[in-house]
Amino acid sequence: MRMRNKPWALAYLSERPDCIRDPQNYKGKWKELLGSSVLHIEIGSGKGDWWLKMSEMVPDEGWLAIEKDKNVSATALKKDLQLQANRRWILGDAAELEEWFAKGEVDVIHLNFTDPWPKKHHAKRRLAHFRFLQRYDKILGEDGTLILKTDNQAYFEFSLCELSQAGWRFCEVDLDYRQEPHQEEAISEYEAKFVSLGKPIYRVKCHRSGGLHEAHD
Amino acid sequence: MRMRNKPWALAYLSERPDCIRDPQNYKGKWKELLGSSVLHIEIGSGKGDWWLKMSEMVPDEGWLAIEKDKNVSATALKKDLQLQANRRWILGDAAELEEWFAKGEVDVIHLNFTDPWPKKHHAKRRLAHFRFLQRYDKILGEDGTLILKTDNQAYFEFSLCELSQAGWRFCEVDLDYRQEPHQEEAISEYEAKFVSLGKPIYRVKCHRSGGLHEAHD
Repeated sequence: MRMRNKPWALAYLSERPDCIRDPQNYKGKWKELLGSSVLHIEIGSGKGDWWLKMSEMVPDEGWLAIEKDKNVSATALKKDLQLQANRRWILGDAAELEEWFAKGEVDVIHLNFTDPWPKKHHAKRRLAHFRFLQRYDKILGEDGTLILKTDNQAYFEFSLCELSQAGWRFCEVDLDYRQEPHQEEAISEYEAKFVSLGKPIYRVKCHRSGGLHEAHD
Repeated sequence: MRMRNKPWALAYLSERPDCIRDPQNYKGKWKELLGSSVLHIEIGSGKGDWWLKMSEMVPDEGWLAIEKDKNVSATALKKDLQLQANRRWILGDAAELEEWFAKGEVDVIHLNFTDPWPKKHHAKRRLAHFRFLQRYDKILGEDGTLILKTDNQAYFEFSLCELSQAGWRFCEVDLDYRQEPHQEEAISEYEAKFVSLGKPIYRVKCHRSGGLHEAHD
C-alpha cells in the first residue's frame, strides 16, 4: 500500500507503547510478551483492521502485525485506541524475519492481500516468492501453518507454484473462499470491497514441507 | 461418462485394430509400437475428440487413450475412421496402469475433465486421488509431467491438495486457462461448451516429486 508521506508518523509511532521498532530484542520471547502459547504473525498488515479484529475475536492467542511503511503503520495504529495485551505492531521489513524470531517460534503466518507486484522484474518483492518462503520455513514450528489470501488471480497462481516448488503441502485450497461465510475469519475493509463486488477471494492454507498432515484412507 | 448400453460395442471394438484390450502385452514396448520417443497417455478419454485432435496436431509423438467404459469407447472410435500409427485406444481400468506400463515409460499423463465424483464417499474414484497419484508416479519418467484440466471448482481444489500432499511440484497453475488462446492445446467438445458459457477452465501442470524444475533467481 502506498500512502502520502505523513511527517508526524514516526513521532507518533515512537509514542505508541504497542509499536515495536526493535523486534530483534524480543527474539524467542514473543509468546511470553503476548501471554499466549500460540503466535500468529501477519506480514504486510496495511490498514491493520484484520489484525485488530482477529486479536479481539481470538483473545487467548498472540497476534503480531508487521508493516514496513511508517505512514501506513501510523494510520493503522490511530484506529487501535484500546491497547490489548495479546497484540503488537512491528514497524519493520519482513526480509529481516530471521533476526526477529527464533527457529520454530511462530505458529501461523498470515499473508492477506499483500502487494501482487505484477511486473515480472518485481517478482522477488512478492511475499510468496521463494526467498521469502525460505525465511518462513525457518521461523515456523514443526506443525506451522501459512495462510495466504488474495483477490489477485495471477498472484494466486504464482503463489501456488512457488509454495508447491518449495515443498509446502496444501491442506485447504479455496478458489472462492467467501462462498461460505467463514465467520471464524475476520473480513478486512479491503476484502469486503471485493466480496461486495462479487469477486472471488482465493485462499490456500498449507504446512511446511515434511510429513503429510492429512490422513489418506 | 455414463451411456446407455450398446449391445454392439464389444464386437465392434474387437474388430478395431487400434483398440487394445491386452495392454499388459505391450508393457515396455509402447514407444516402439507408436514409433515415437515421447509417450502421452490420456486417462478417461470419454468421447475421444481431444486425443484424436492432439494425435493429429502433434503427429511425431505417441498418444494413448484409456477408457474403461466399452460403450463410450465404441462411440469414440466410430469417429476415428482414419487409423493413424501414432495413436491407440486402450479399453481398460486405470487402476491397472502399473501392469501396462514399465517404470518410467510414460512422459506425459493427461487428465481432461474426468469425473469429479462429488460425493465424499466416492473420493477414492477420483483420478486425482492419492492412490492414483502413486500409480502415476511409478509409470512416469524422471522428468515426467502430469497435466490436469477441469471445469469443476471443487474438484480442482481437491486435486491441488492431493497433488501437493503427494509431493508433486506445480510449474503452471491456471485458474482461467482459456483467457489466453493456447492454440497448442486442442479443445474437446465438452470443454468448448464450458468456454462458450464463459466458465473458467482450471489447469495445473506439474512434475513428479523430486528436484525443482524451475530456476529461482
